[in-house]
Amino acid sequence: MSERLEPVPLPDPALVYDLIAAALAEDGAHRDVTTLALVPPDQQGRGRLLAKSSGVIAGLPVAAAAFAAMDEEVELVPAVADGAWVEPMTTIGVVSGPLRSILSAERVALNFLQRLSGIATATRALTDAVADLPVRVLDTRKTTPGLRDLERYAVRVGGGHNHRFNLSDGVLIKDNHIAAARARGLSIADIVREARRGAPHTLRVEIEVTRLEEAQAALAAGADVILLDNMGLPEMAEVVTMVRGRALTEASGGVTLATVRAIALTGVDLISAGSITHSAAALDISLEVEAGTSG
Amino acid sequence: MSERLEPVPLPDPALVYDLIAAALAEDGAHRDVTTLALVPPDQQGRGRLLAKSSGVIAGLPVAAAAFAAMDEEVELVPAVADGAWVEPMTTIGVVSGPLRSILSAERVALNFLQRLSGIATATRALTDAVADLPVRVLDTRKTTPGLRDLERYAVRVGGGHNHRFNLSDGVLIKDNHIAAARARGLSIADIVREARRGAPHTLRVEIEVTRLEEAQAALAAGADVILLDNMGLPEMAEVVTMVRGRALTEASGGVTLATVRAIALTGVDLISAGSITHSAAALDISLEVEAGTSG
Amino acid sequence: MSERLEPVPLPDPALVYDLIAAALAEDGAHRDVTTLALVPPDQQGRGRLLAKSSGVIAGLPVAAAAFAAMDEEVELVPAVADGAWVEPMTTIGVVSGPLRSILSAERVALNFLQRLSGIATATRALTDAVADLPVRVLDTRKTTPGLRDLERYAVRVGGGHNHRFNLSDGVLIKDNHIAAARARGLSIADIVREARRGAPHTLRVEIEVTRLEEAQAALAAGADVILLDNMGLPEMAEVVTMVRGRALTEASGGVTLATVRAIALTGVDLISAGSITHSAAALDISLEVEAGTSG
Amino acid sequence: MSERLEPVPLPDPALVYDLIAAALAEDGAHRDVTTLALVPPDQQGRGRLLAKSSGVIAGLPVAAAAFAAMDEEVELVPAVADGAWVEPMTTIGVVSGPLRSILSAERVALNFLQRLSGIATATRALTDAVADLPVRVLDTRKTTPGLRDLERYAVRVGGGHNHRFNLSDGVLIKDNHIAAARARGLSIADIVREARRGAPHTLRVEIEVTRLEEAQAALAAGADVILLDNMGLPEMAEVVTMVRGRALTEASGGVTLATVRAIALTGVDLISAGSITHSAAALDISLEVEAGTSG
Amino acid sequence: MSERLEPVPLPDPALVYDLIAAALAEDGAHRDVTTLALVPPDQQGRGRLLAKSSGVIAGLPVAAAAFAAMDEEVELVPAVADGAWVEPMTTIGVVSGPLRSILSAERVALNFLQRLSGIATATRALTDAVADLPVRVLDTRKTTPGLRDLERYAVRVGGGHNHRFNLSDGVLIKDNHIAAARARGLSIADIVREARRGAPHTLRVEIEVTRLEEAQAALAAGADVILLDNMGLPEMAEVVTMVRGRALTEASGGVTLATVRAIALTGVDLISAGSITHSAAALDISLEVEAGTSG
Amino acid sequence: MSERLEPVPLPDPALVYDLIAAALAEDGAHRDVTTLALVPPDQQGRGRLLAKSSGVIAGLPVAAAAFAAMDEEVELVPAVADGAWVEPMTTIGVVSGPLRSILSAERVALNFLQRLSGIATATRALTDAVADLPVRVLDTRKTTPGLRDLERYAVRVGGGHNHRFNLSDGVLIKDNHIAAARARGLSIADIVREARRGAPHTLRVEIEVTRLEEAQAALAAGADVILLDNMGLPEMAEVVTMVRGRALTEASGGVTLATVRAIALTGVDLISAGSITHSAAALDISLEVEAGTSG
Repeated sequence: MSERLEPVPLPDPALVYDLIAAALAEDGAHRDVTTLALVPPDQQGRGRLLAKSSGVIAGLPVAAAAFAAMDEEVELVPAVADGAWVEPMTTIGVVSGPLRSILSAERVALNFLQRLSGIATATRALTDAVADLPVRVLDTRKTTPGLRDLERYAVRVGGGHNHRFNLSDGVLIKDNHIAAARARGLSIADIVREARRGAPHTLRVEIEVTRLEEAQAALAAGADVILLDNMGLPEMAEVVTMVRGRALTEASGGVTLATVRAIALTGVDLISAGSITHSAAALDISLEVEAGTSG
Repeated sequence: MSERLEPVPLPDPALVYDLIAAALAEDGAHRDVTTLALVPPDQQGRGRLLAKSSGVIAGLPVAAAAFAAMDEEVELVPAVADGAWVEPMTTIGVVSGPLRSILSAERVALNFLQRLSGIATATRALTDAVADLPVRVLDTRKTTPGLRDLERYAVRVGGGHNHRFNLSDGVLIKDNHIAAARARGLSIADIVREARRGAPHTLRVEIEVTRLEEAQAALAAGADVILLDNMGLPEMAEVVTMVRGRALTEASGGVTLATVRAIALTGVDLISAGSITHSAAALDISLEVEAGTSG
Repeated sequence: MSERLEPVPLPDPALVYDLIAAALAEDGAHRDVTTLALVPPDQQGRGRLLAKSSGVIAGLPVAAAAFAAMDEEVELVPAVADGAWVEPMTTIGVVSGPLRSILSAERVALNFLQRLSGIATATRALTDAVADLPVRVLDTRKTTPGLRDLERYAVRVGGGHNHRFNLSDGVLIKDNHIAAARARGLSIADIVREARRGAPHTLRVEIEVTRLEEAQAALAAGADVILLDNMGLPEMAEVVTMVRGRALTEASGGVTLATVRAIALTGVDLISAGSITHSAAALDISLEVEAGTSG
Repeated sequence: MSERLEPVPLPDPALVYDLIAAALAEDGAHRDVTTLALVPPDQQGRGRLLAKSSGVIAGLPVAAAAFAAMDEEVELVPAVADGAWVEPMTTIGVVSGPLRSILSAERVALNFLQRLSGIATATRALTDAVADLPVRVLDTRKTTPGLRDLERYAVRVGGGHNHRFNLSDGVLIKDNHIAAARARGLSIADIVREARRGAPHTLRVEIEVTRLEEAQAALAAGADVILLDNMGLPEMAEVVTMVRGRALTEASGGVTLATVRAIALTGVDLISAGSITHSAAALDISLEVEAGTSG
Repeated sequence: MSERLEPVPLPDPALVYDLIAAALAEDGAHRDVTTLALVPPDQQGRGRLLAKSSGVIAGLPVAAAAFAAMDEEVELVPAVADGAWVEPMTTIGVVSGPLRSILSAERVALNFLQRLSGIATATRALTDAVADLPVRVLDTRKTTPGLRDLERYAVRVGGGHNHRFNLSDGVLIKDNHIAAARARGLSIADIVREARRGAPHTLRVEIEVTRLEEAQAALAAGADVILLDNMGLPEMAEVVTMVRGRALTEASGGVTLATVRAIALTGVDLISAGSITHSAAALDISLEVEAGTSG
Repeated sequence: MSERLEPVPLPDPALVYDLIAAALAEDGAHRDVTTLALVPPDQQGRGRLLAKSSGVIAGLPVAAAAFAAMDEEVELVPAVADGAWVEPMTTIGVVSGPLRSILSAERVALNFLQRLSGIATATRALTDAVADLPVRVLDTRKTTPGLRDLERYAVRVGGGHNHRFNLSDGVLIKDNHIAAARARGLSIADIVREARRGAPHTLRVEIEVTRLEEAQAALAAGADVILLDNMGLPEMAEVVTMVRGRALTEASGGVTLATVRAIALTGVDLISAGSITHSAAALDISLEVEAGTSG
């Protein structure tokens, strides 16, 4: 499924800038008492961004924007591109410019870079495990409040695909919706039809099912995508066989590196995993400064 | 060190409200096409917030604020208080009100709650491991951009303490500052003195050292806190012995559940761990809806 | 198609409040030199909102919020509900409270109310003309910058349906996309397939065609919706016949009160009209004050 | 009255930028799923902005700013200046640059351009009808919430003049103020004097009257401008004759292309028309893309 | 000129709230490390707001809003009204509620209150000196960036009047405009006429003059207000005599407590003084806490 | 104490820009009716910034940013650097560019420049009086809401030092905290210990005392800084002698040009003065324009 060789498009630069500016303010980057006391304004320097663990790099343009937002004279020259897999102790970029600004923006730049690289790395682990199979690994809406655009970017950098962005651009009928509708006496088929009628005509209708019979009812009622949540592997395979391509099938729940391949082998079209965003460990990246002499 | 029995103070409610409002907008909570199509406006409902794994709960007031920001008629009644340790399948709160609003705000509320509970849980693991020792577990500035106040709250809920909030309220001379100053010919002692002179009089001076001799020089020059970064256990113990309470000692680097007790036993006063914020896995919490009939 | 008897859901109240607050600031409502000079602070009053032309009322809750944002002691009690058709000189609501606040917020409240009622009225004219036919009248993205949510609300109040909200929640391949793709050597079928592969799995694929052959190619390649832009009536009917329900058909271009019924009679499923938002005349509504005596 | 040959000054660029950024975000311009799926990042293109109806162009600098806000590599070169009258099928500008950005910003740029050109066109119709008479055509405060500055710009581009910007920069005593003051026992003369005393000394006092006697009383009490709202033509002429230049006279109410000249011939100095902003139809303008090949 | 006995209207509460929220955030009021360490969350308390110098109180509603923004359980009950003259050691209000919140908001509340009271006091000194004369004391645009609305409120509380709010609501032709116009060959009379023609019809035209001849020319050309900047007393009197009420006269420059009465005695209608806003000393006000016991 | 020869670092440029943009909007700089009527768009000009009183200049970069925010073609070339002492009638900078923009931004630029220069001048008066003594003059948190960063900059430009920025970056136990704690039965020593335990380890503990015994108790309990508020000179000297360098001593209250030297001679390390920010008179600075001819 690696049809896309081109660079992954970045989110709205204005949004990214606002996130960076808020982060710099939060971190008191312009009242950095330590740096102001120890580094003269005219001291220049360089710093290597060093990946200390292996993983997929994501967010170098964001880190560059963070340094530039601090001080337009600071430049980050990437040594690798977003999406590169690196081994431990790889230099992934070099920052140069006024040392005060480099040190005051360091933490903010790294906080973005480490988190996004962590997400890309977690995603890549899953996508690599199913690289030869006709399945897409998807993210979920279980992202950090405010950072969804960036985290979805990292998922794509890691080889994953994005599920719907938010509640507005996809109809996804989940267990709680079904419980709500059943309380009104609706069957699965009723629910699919009501969603189809009420939703914008530009959207497909996806519904979560727990049993084969529900999948059959949903399919008959016109569901476009069948979500199999926390279903056993044999049942999944049974649903896939039953559907026979008349709808897409998506698996979710309990997706880990240990399970993803077996899930994919059931023949589902899509596998979504919350863990790649809500529980990805940050990639260990540091900045190693080589200072110049003053002025 | 569990001297504080009172509730942990929450961050600025205006800040929390802004984060919530941005998250609801990001998630398209007011254009939830699925819920609008399937749930009538007058259908009421209840939902149980269910912790599916064991851990420390943090963020119930934030989740409550998220539901209330969506619709002031939605109420979350906590079943436990922030800071409680829960076993799997514990109901931690009950949400009730208009079902549309409950479903449309569900993800945002959970995204905050799961992340903060994950941080509190990771923190508690470390603090429990050293609960009988006179040491504080600290967070770092390795927090999610924009969420530092909330994540520090979760650390305190988990029994940890907060390090400086940002670059403005603590002097912390790190390896890169030392590299910058050495390039100007300064010794460790010079650096401590220059920081003392340049910093606000309200702040202590903390400096990172890598060897005993540096610790001695820093102490002699008046450092208030000595940071031992990635130092071996015997060396740490040696520094602690040398310092003899004349300054605080802080250990950082490689702090895990496996190592924290051994580090604490060296006698350091403080142990800081980036992982409790940058790499905490989200706690698994879901909402289980019981719908009423319409109107 | 009037399946929805329930009230149309309003947009995010926080968004509406922000628009109102910006409008009050823009209008200098708190520095209303005329009112401050002539109306004592304790003078109470009432005002009737009077529709001077016939039409559909939309936006009374927004007007109420505008008065309340000016002064929480001002209350607007609607005399009709949003969606009501009114004849000239109908009182549609009564405002009461401190007269200063009523007068200072009058213009902002009316500016929202007149515009939204104008849009609802223009929409109703079209939907009434095809009320007995199985077709939906849709809006477009030709809305006032910043007011899209409110204007779409007015369309629904007028009996219309909403097309996609924005570029994120619908795949709509228009003439310019086709020109861009053709320059790369792609056929209509290629384009549909590339869009299907590149787009999120939650979205249908809609494509604009100009000839029957293109419609056939698009349908064969899996298009979910066929947009017939500025096509002659016979050609439209021909496409509808060809499609035979295997995809939705949407007509756009030149949709007026004079043409909408004939277009609908071709059998298309959807008719979209930019004019209902970009060129709707404001409905004439005024405020007629009956002042109380001071204090 | 066409004394101004120079370009009309644009509103605050920071304000315009904020409106554009909000509009691009509202339209999901950076998550344009169709364009991202079909247009490679390196494909360049050109597009002609084509006026399909005759009218006055206004807002080309705003459209240019919208494209540039999307992507600084997109350039709009105007083919005519704001204020130009164009015939149908006139190319009014050419956009060039990365095709993705052109297509993603197209709708936002057009939404501004079509609305502002519609206002300028409606204004020009009125001003042309009275071009040989010593009268000014004015706008009102009946503008789109949030867009007042831009819409007043379009009025000036169309040859009109601006009335007060908001409630802070003009004393305009309207029927509701008079009703409020009469309830306190004040006469027209009292009202004018109280307004004069209470208002900033930098502002003139304008008052709405409905009869000749009121105009006389207002003039005697020192009114600077007499507003004749919905008054018959003979009565208007009578007031103008009575005033004899000792105050300005302004006509409002029922101002249309059919009536404006007759109103002007009464000799009033000013004619204000809400319709040029609240009910102007958008000018039909489209973008016609000529795509280059990829890379 | 004390015609106004009613309370001075406060600025837009939304604006005031935003200023307060920004000030609380700036002051770190929700991370008040001292108070959090020393005051338990359930300790209640009271505090007296004590004026330590004599002066005019202005801003008690703003201080109340600051405490309430910190914590809605904190209440400030004023002991005097804004506008009251107080002697040293007067209790002007009492704050009660949770002690933590009182202490954390104290400085922000006082910073607003002391500044506004200082401005009101400086204004009152001037207005008292000319209380028996038919002259108004005016402020200028020399206000603190961002606080103009509040500072103008304080001026009114002190018995002064407001000049134009900003560049948009008054035509004031100053020395630099005259220099600019003279460079284009315009005379004083030309300038007045050009301003009259170019300005909105709702505004008067005011012009600064330095000599009697200029005043004569300006008056003849139709100036509504003549500004006498830094003119000697005899010259001022001469201009006033010449004008004979056909325009207003305003004096500015060098207005102090020592000079204001002599200036007023020249017969000018208006005296404007920048010092009452740009150089007013803060009134000395403190908070004296009486703490309750915990819980 | 003039150890710092290098330029004082400016606050966050993004913060400064936001303050400027808000100030320009507040002043209606883009709707400057006078300038728009009198100055053609192509007229260029120059203006000298003229200090009319003696004092210390602070804020020239802010003024330059204000002109540039209005119009990037306006350039301010400083004739002196921030921190320079100037005599009356000194040209401190030259502004050149489009005259319209210069005139419309003039007041905002001057409002910042005059206030900051006033603060720097007031600070310099105090620091000069004790220049030969080993004492630092400090500001307080008695700053203008929203402008603290800029005002602290001006204090440093005037030779002063900054106290803590806000409640988050310093522990300062004041009379009200002590009253609160005493109500719970705590002694001075208890208070110091509780603050030390509850506060972040990066902060020193400062406490206000009124008597020698309290100072002794505070020192014994580990206070790092002893604040002597409104204490008599002999008592101050006595405390300084008692402390013998084991803590810092800070004097506050009643600090004026008349008293500052005597206070310093008691041997205190720090003197803080609220008056330098809350009551500094603006420095008199004006803009003198030399206009070019049009175009």
